[in-house]
Amino acid sequence: MSLYLGVDIGGTNVKIAAVSAAGRVLARGVIETRAGEGPAPAFRRIHDAARTLVGKGRLAGVGIGCAGLLDARSRRLLASPNLPDWQGAALERIARVHFGVPILVENDATCAAFGESLARGRDGRDLVMITLGTGVGGGLVSDGRVVRGASGFAGEVGHMIVDPNGPRCRCGARGCLEAYAGAYGIARTARNALRRRGKRRLAVGGRLDARAVFEAARHGDPAAREAVRVTGEHLGTAIASLLNLLNPSMVVIGGGIAASFAALSPHVRRAVERSAFTATARAARIETSRLGNDAAVVGAAMLVHGARPRRRPAG
Amino acid sequence: MSLYLGVDIGGTNVKIAAVSAAGRVLARGVIETRAGEGPAPAFRRIHDAARTLVGKGRLAGVGIGCAGLLDARSRRLLASPNLPDWQGAALERIARVHFGVPILVENDATCAAFGESLARGRDGRDLVMITLGTGVGGGLVSDGRVVRGASGFAGEVGHMIVDPNGPRCRCGARGCLEAYAGAYGIARTARNALRRRGKRRLAVGGRLDARAVFEAARHGDPAAREAVRVTGEHLGTAIASLLNLLNPSMVVIGGGIAASFAALSPHVRRAVERSAFTATARAARIETSRLGNDAAVVGAAMLVHGARPRRRPAG
Repeated sequence: MSLYLGVDIGGTNVKIAAVSAAGRVLARGVIETRAGEGPAPAFRRIHDAARTLVGKGRLAGVGIGCAGLLDARSRRLLASPNLPDWQGAALERIARVHFGVPILVENDATCAAFGESLARGRDGRDLVMITLGTGVGGGLVSDGRVVRGASGFAGEVGHMIVDPNGPRCRCGARGCLEAYAGAYGIARTARNALRRRGKRRLAVGGRLDARAVFEAARHGDPAAREAVRVTGEHLGTAIASLLNLLNPSMVVIGGGIAASFAALSPHVRRAVERSAFTATARAARIETSRLGNDAAVVGAAMLVHGARPRRRPAG
Repeated sequence: MSLYLGVDIGGTNVKIAAVSAAGRVLARGVIETRAGEGPAPAFRRIHDAARTLVGKGRLAGVGIGCAGLLDARSRRLLASPNLPDWQGAALERIARVHFGVPILVENDATCAAFGESLARGRDGRDLVMITLGTGVGGGLVSDGRVVRGASGFAGEVGHMIVDPNGPRCRCGARGCLEAYAGAYGIARTARNALRRRGKRRLAVGGRLDARAVFEAARHGDPAAREAVRVTGEHLGTAIASLLNLLNPSMVVIGGGIAASFAALSPHVRRAVERSAFTATARAARIETSRLGNDAAVVGAAMLVHGARPRRRPAG
């Protein structure tokens, strides 16, 4: 049985999965990334783990999703704030040392978008994925194909400007979506809301992070509720722009904060209704990820499956 | 010789052109659109004019670009503020009455984007087109293919939100790019700048419209210069978002206001440098249209050329 290996390289670990040609995950594994360890030793461990996962199946390709900016031409990882030891790595070349099958490297959120697109069939052919975590990433699928852009950097939804006078983003610009909807942005908005109220901490939760903000909002804390509203409204403004610009049939929310999307959703919908250009845009589906943590490994595996040179019919 | 007919249906006239398979315009014509005249009589006149243009060539296809929202499934013109008599028209069906060749209908700015993309060869494979006129339109090309979206409404660059607290757009939302960079938005910004200065008119120019604003700015009128700066900065913010999101190798500015882009350009570049996520985005080319008024007719003709069912090799 032909299997594809999906690899999802993140800041804290590497997820791997054996995926069938139909996009079904048959086995999963996790490899911790070690500080100071570059991609070469990590790929040795990935290869060892993959042998167990694939078992008696025939490995037909390796799809690799990686956080950060992958240059389309050199296939090098140009920048990835969460993978400092991997900077500049030619991932495809390093992977080829271990795997004698077709290899494809792509941005992790783009892989996730492709995985979600396939999981939804016809409805997913035009899809925008937004991953809410520490940062905000994204991936675009247009007419069933991933949108890579001229250099492979397309999909940086987190760096759409939602308010040019807004707070500073980690990237240096002002008012990026990430400055509001990234975990650090949510915590900052809550801190500011507390300060205006002359308070120093939320009603519940310890350390003031995004998780604590959502928990405190559920308990009715006014500053936390304000932070959730502000986050949702700016996320909704960005989604309205995406709907007007790309006309996807759905927007899929993934990443760690997707679990709290129910709290953001009414604010998102209100902003979308205010700013969507067409009735179609106003009615667009905005949903959380179906594949969850599997999205990027499935998408990466299916990208290499689709890129496989197909046998031409004899004739 | 096989020729394609390109048709560009706008609010004031219909441009038509005979286009070679290589995308070269061989002959042009213009037909005035008449108030109260629907698409059926207009297409009779388009057909008559086309016979003269095509001459002894063989007509191989008709590509039609039309202002407004074209529904991908029904191919009907759902909404077009500048073509009230054409509302709901099934353009493909109406055109078929006169032309017994393949017909393709597409949004005019999407056609223009495709035309510009082809005119620039490899550099144009990932391209965003922004048309600055009364309204602000746009078209997207990704990896050499037009981005249509799920319903055919993709490319509405004018309705990206650049400031959620900004002025009202014709579409009802606040702070759309069009509310700043559409002709009426530019005039409004200048009126507000005059009012704050206790003045009622610009130093030069008669009626306060976008053209007068650019002219007065050239003559150093402070209110007009402020309006040009505000317009350019918001256009630059939108372009930065587009660069971050879609990673095109170039942004092409078309439409009537493209002639004044030199005045906007330094403000655009400043905003792009402030908000672009990567060095690649900061370095992206932002240029005015090469094909000018021909962009949509060439793009429409080349879209139907590309969509033509190709003969399959025998085998």
